[in-house]
Amino acid sequence: MVLFRRLLGDVLRSRRVEQGRTLRQLCAEARVSLGYMSEIERGQKEASSELLAAICAALDMPLSELLSEVSDAVALEEAAMALRLEQVTTTELPGPSAGRSTGGEVVASAA
Amino acid sequence: MVLFRRLLGDVLRSRRVEQGRTLRQLCAEARVSLGYMSEIERGQKEASSELLAAICAALDMPLSELLSEVSDAVALEEAAMALRLEQVTTTELPGPSAGRSTGGEVVASAA
Repeated sequence: MVLFRRLLGDVLRSRRVEQGRTLRQLCAEARVSLGYMSEIERGQKEASSELLAAICAALDMPLSELLSEVSDAVALEEAAMALRLEQVTTTELPGPSAGRSTGGEVVASAA
Repeated sequence: MVLFRRLLGDVLRSRRVEQGRTLRQLCAEARVSLGYMSEIERGQKEASSELLAAICAALDMPLSELLSEVSDAVALEEAAMALRLEQVTTTELPGPSAGRSTGGEVVASAA
């Protein structure tokens, strides 16, 4: 499952690091506690919409741009997951002609 | 302030209505209570990342697509806010050269 908060955290951290700012500096500007912001960047806590707006303002980044970047990151992960699923399906369910008549396991397919 | 949850709710509701599905049907599939889902669609409650994933699955819509649509909606609202701000600024702070000596009206331009 692709989780919004994890990719959001990745994008927020990248943007902050790109700007050469510490977590402490950003937290002071966005008026959020260091521990909470750290958990958001690590994808461990959900950020409220008000907090997202404050973080965007502190990063000088429109919310639309943040969401667009997160959408791109999510799309990449969705594609990677689809690829892995396809590989698993191809490897473990080779079709009727591959004969596992000697005790092969039946693996559930999510396709 | 542009709030993520409000635009998210708008996009989710539009997509559900487009599919001709009732709130009740969607809730049953996403395993979320009717009251909670209704509040999410009205932008009154934040949805957790797990719930977002479940709603996307129920709507047969990749999370990346949802976020991209919300990003577009947010961008429109940001542009509208910037426009309103510009109009207010131009009207209330016309600047030294705007002279109204000939009685001509100074009209705020959004271009």
